[in-house]
Amino acid sequence: MKILLGSGGFRTDERKSNLATMMKRHFGDIKTLLFVPYALHDHDAYEAMITDNNLHGGYTIEGIHRTPNPRKAIEQAEGIYVGGGNTFRLLNTLYELDLLDVIRSCVEDGMPYLGISAGTNVACPTMMTTNDMPICQPPSLKALGLVPFQVNAHYYSGATYVEVDGTYHSHFGETRDDRIREFHEMNDAPVVGLWEGGMIHIENNTATLHAASARLFRKGEAAIDIQPGDRITA
Amino acid sequence: MKILLGSGGFRTDERKSNLATMMKRHFGDIKTLLFVPYALHDHDAYEAMITDNNLHGGYTIEGIHRTPNPRKAIEQAEGIYVGGGNTFRLLNTLYELDLLDVIRSCVEDGMPYLGISAGTNVACPTMMTTNDMPICQPPSLKALGLVPFQVNAHYYSGATYVEVDGTYHSHFGETRDDRIREFHEMNDAPVVGLWEGGMIHIENNTATLHAASARLFRKGEAAIDIQPGDRITA
Repeated sequence: MKILLGSGGFRTDERKSNLATMMKRHFGDIKTLLFVPYALHDHDAYEAMITDNNLHGGYTIEGIHRTPNPRKAIEQAEGIYVGGGNTFRLLNTLYELDLLDVIRSCVEDGMPYLGISAGTNVACPTMMTTNDMPICQPPSLKALGLVPFQVNAHYYSGATYVEVDGTYHSHFGETRDDRIREFHEMNDAPVVGLWEGGMIHIENNTATLHAASARLFRKGEAAIDIQPGDRITA
Repeated sequence: MKILLGSGGFRTDERKSNLATMMKRHFGDIKTLLFVPYALHDHDAYEAMITDNNLHGGYTIEGIHRTPNPRKAIEQAEGIYVGGGNTFRLLNTLYELDLLDVIRSCVEDGMPYLGISAGTNVACPTMMTTNDMPICQPPSLKALGLVPFQVNAHYYSGATYVEVDGTYHSHFGETRDDRIREFHEMNDAPVVGLWEGGMIHIENNTATLHAASARLFRKGEAAIDIQPGDRITA
C-alpha cells in the first residue's frame, strides 16, 4: 500500500513546498487526483481552494462530489486525496455513501492514498484521536484502518495560549498529551502526535516520518520524540 | 429548575472564590452534594481533588461511584454536581448506568444541578459542542437537555498559540469560532461560548451570565458578546 498522511497546517510556503515534493514522490507520473471534500460544507469551494492555495502538488484535482457515481469514481481513480475539515462529517458521509470498503480495497490494490488532517484521521483504525467537534454522529467511529496506528493531527506539546490585547494568557483546557492519555485509558492503539507540516509516508510496509518531528505514545510507556527520517513501527 | 453551569478553568483563587459564592447561592442551606466523577478515569482521586483543590463550595462531597445504587442515590440527593473531564466518557457512562432519565426528572422536580465543563456539556440538548476527544462512542450524542441552548466550555476567541523555547507560534488548527460555525452548518441550537471561569445560572426560567464574558452564536446571525449580569435567551 502507498499512503501519505499529512498533519495539516500547510499554510507557509516551506510547508507547501514540502507537501508538493512528497506528493510527487508518492503519486508519481499520473495526472489527476480524485479529491474528497466531504469534511467541509462547501465542496465546490474546497475543491477550488486546493489548487488556488497551491496544495495540489501540480496534479489536476477532480472533486468526487461532482461525479455521478462516487463508488465508480474511486474504482477508476489513479490516486485519491482526502482533505481536512471536520472528521465527524467526513466519516459520516463516507458511511452514508457506503464508500469505506471500496476505498480500502482500492488502496490495498495499490491506489495511492493521500490524507490531510481529517483525511489522515479516517485512514487510522478509528477516528478516536481527532481534535474535531462532534457536529454529527457517524454510525461508528471505526474508520478505514489503512495503518495500524492512530494519528493525532495538528499535534503540539504543552499548554496553549490565547492572545488578548497583545498579551498571551494560559488556556486551562486539556492539553493534547492529556487527551491522548485519556484515549489510552480506554484504548490500546499507539498514537503518533504529528506536528503541523509533518507527514508520514508508508511504502513497502515501512512508515517513515517527514518534514516535522512527532511524538509517539504507546499505552503504558513514556512518550518518545521521533525526527524526520525515523521509521514508525506500530 | 435550578441549574448552575460552569465553563471550567477554575484554577485561580479569584475563580475558585467566584465558584464558591455561586455554589452557596445555588445550593443554599444543604450539607451534601452527590458528585458524579465519570468524566475522569480515577473516580476516587477526582472526588478527593474537588475538596482538596477547594472546588467544593464548603459542601460535603459524596462520590456517586461509591454508592451501591446510583439511581437511588440521585433520587435521594439534595443536590448534584457533575464534574469535568472527557464528555464522551461521561455521557457513555450515564447511558450505561441508565441515569439520564432519573437526573432529568429529579432536576425538573427541583434538585439543584451543578455542571462544570463536561458536566455543563451534558446539561445541553446534545454533547455536540464539546471540545473533547471521542475516546469512546456513546449510543447517542443526545444529553440531558436541561437547558435549550448548547454551551461551548473553555471558550476563547481567535487563534491559539503554542510556546516553543520561550516564543509563541501560531497553531493552524480550527479556531473555536470555526468549530461553532461548522456546528451550525449541521444543527440549529444557539451556542453560548463561555470563557473559562464563567458561569450560567438558571433560576425561575431565567438564565444569567456570571463571572466572565461569553459569546452567543445563533445560526445565520453575527455572534454577539455578552457580559456578566446579562440574560441569555435561547
